[in-house]
Amino acid sequence: MPFERVAIIGLGLLGGSIGLAVREHLPGVKTVGYDADPDVRAKARELGLVQTIADDPAEAVRGADLIVLCVPVGAMRDAAKAIAPGLSPDAVVSDVGSSKQRVGKALAEELPGHHVIPAHPVAGTEQSGPEAGFASLFDGRWCILTPPDGADEGKLAALVHFWKALGSTVEVMDAEHHDMVLAVTSHIPHLIAYTIVGTASDLEEVRRSEVIKYSAGGFRDFTRIAASDPTMWRDVFLHNQDAVLEMMDRFLGDLEAMREAIKTGDGEAMFELFSRTRAIRRGILEQGQDDARPDFGRQDHTNDQ
Amino acid sequence: MPFERVAIIGLGLLGGSIGLAVREHLPGVKTVGYDADPDVRAKARELGLVQTIADDPAEAVRGADLIVLCVPVGAMRDAAKAIAPGLSPDAVVSDVGSSKQRVGKALAEELPGHHVIPAHPVAGTEQSGPEAGFASLFDGRWCILTPPDGADEGKLAALVHFWKALGSTVEVMDAEHHDMVLAVTSHIPHLIAYTIVGTASDLEEVRRSEVIKYSAGGFRDFTRIAASDPTMWRDVFLHNQDAVLEMMDRFLGDLEAMREAIKTGDGEAMFELFSRTRAIRRGILEQGQDDARPDFGRQDHTNDQ
Repeated sequence: MPFERVAIIGLGLLGGSIGLAVREHLPGVKTVGYDADPDVRAKARELGLVQTIADDPAEAVRGADLIVLCVPVGAMRDAAKAIAPGLSPDAVVSDVGSSKQRVGKALAEELPGHHVIPAHPVAGTEQSGPEAGFASLFDGRWCILTPPDGADEGKLAALVHFWKALGSTVEVMDAEHHDMVLAVTSHIPHLIAYTIVGTASDLEEVRRSEVIKYSAGGFRDFTRIAASDPTMWRDVFLHNQDAVLEMMDRFLGDLEAMREAIKTGDGEAMFELFSRTRAIRRGILEQGQDDARPDFGRQDHTNDQ
Repeated sequence: MPFERVAIIGLGLLGGSIGLAVREHLPGVKTVGYDADPDVRAKARELGLVQTIADDPAEAVRGADLIVLCVPVGAMRDAAKAIAPGLSPDAVVSDVGSSKQRVGKALAEELPGHHVIPAHPVAGTEQSGPEAGFASLFDGRWCILTPPDGADEGKLAALVHFWKALGSTVEVMDAEHHDMVLAVTSHIPHLIAYTIVGTASDLEEVRRSEVIKYSAGGFRDFTRIAASDPTMWRDVFLHNQDAVLEMMDRFLGDLEAMREAIKTGDGEAMFELFSRTRAIRRGILEQGQDDARPDFGRQDHTNDQ
């Protein structure tokens, strides 16, 4: 067993799911949790997300050999400060943040001499809070580790082992590349979804009730993404600014090109793009990263003949 | 029974689903189908999508009191021309196209003196072709009718009755308003999804395999939408040009504002938008237009405690 005692700081969707997944997959490992919100601590206790709830962050990490910070990326620095007094020198400090360069920097600055190995499990739902967690969240999902140069190999191996035990497939890459990849696969999609849902709700020509009624035409999928936790996502955009702006400008350039194609009636340019994008979908289905049933299996597709 | 014999022209996802839904919900009604592609006709015969397959469009509509054109909107005019020789003067000619002003105009021009009542069932999946159809596609979904001024009230009532029998809730509105509403709830979401999937697949810094691997962070939902039928969607953008361009410019303006917020680190503006968009999602779930389970129920959420 790579770790004997895991401290989870922040008991929302991710933190709660880690607690439940440890109980299921690593039953010998002790879990202790802390959340800055006393109501969340009470709820986590009631739900049994971890074995022990501590009422103080430094207390929570005392004796832990792995600490996972599960707070919004903008709160990572303060969380690191808060745990510092209780931290064992041998412990691994990791996190689950969606951006990695600035988080890694903040943790390294606040915890000099400690084993900081940032991580990002690419898993989640649009739900948030302690009730949203579930043990299988990481099953078959990727977890990206971004160890700094010179990270302890043994500690890194232990963290890889931990995430694999929770059901994830682990990839190691540098933080800068992570931030670029996630900008395009996650951050920009969220930004677009939030924006178009906002655009739709501000229209004067189309009533909000109509937007809701006719959402099955494509819009509803965007609303699911745009229902994600606002604090978490604000922090992601503030902390992965450069990569997000870079990817956004590419997207804006491509969207302008499509605008031009629509304006000039260039059906060929549209058909070329619309055909090409099917290949990416095929890749995602082949690699088991999505549900292959049409419309995510929302409908009952019994072809009753 | 409002209609005794329904002719379906075009036997893909929509046409096939109508055939199957009529068999299930209106078992006394005769169905005859035609598709320009002989392979599709053969497949439709094999699958039993309709009772009779005709090898000629004019033949297919002979004696039918309802004709539903289920071809891409760019093919509507030619389909109307092709059925004209066989059309009964009393028959209702309708369609399932996603844009309504230009389709209505094309049908009225090609079929003067006939009862043209355009329709748009707001239902579909990312699949296409005769094998994609299923009887419950229209269950609990909206169907929008856009009758021209002076449309026969009795014929309109019969078409409303028909779509209700297939499980839909029917709304009547003018074609111009339809095109504006659908531009925002369906056309722009598709355009955005196609574009971002294209942007991602063109990147040099991020490999395509990485985009696929880490798609669970939000991107995969866009790829589902971007796997929709390219011909159908090219035609939608060519035929709903004005409304799409108008909505696109609103979206682009809002996206520029978010770009500025990210650039200047304006967390408040982001938080305000990201909080506001949750209300729309709530409305969609309350009205049963989406699956309330987190992540569309992709994961098993058994909280095993």
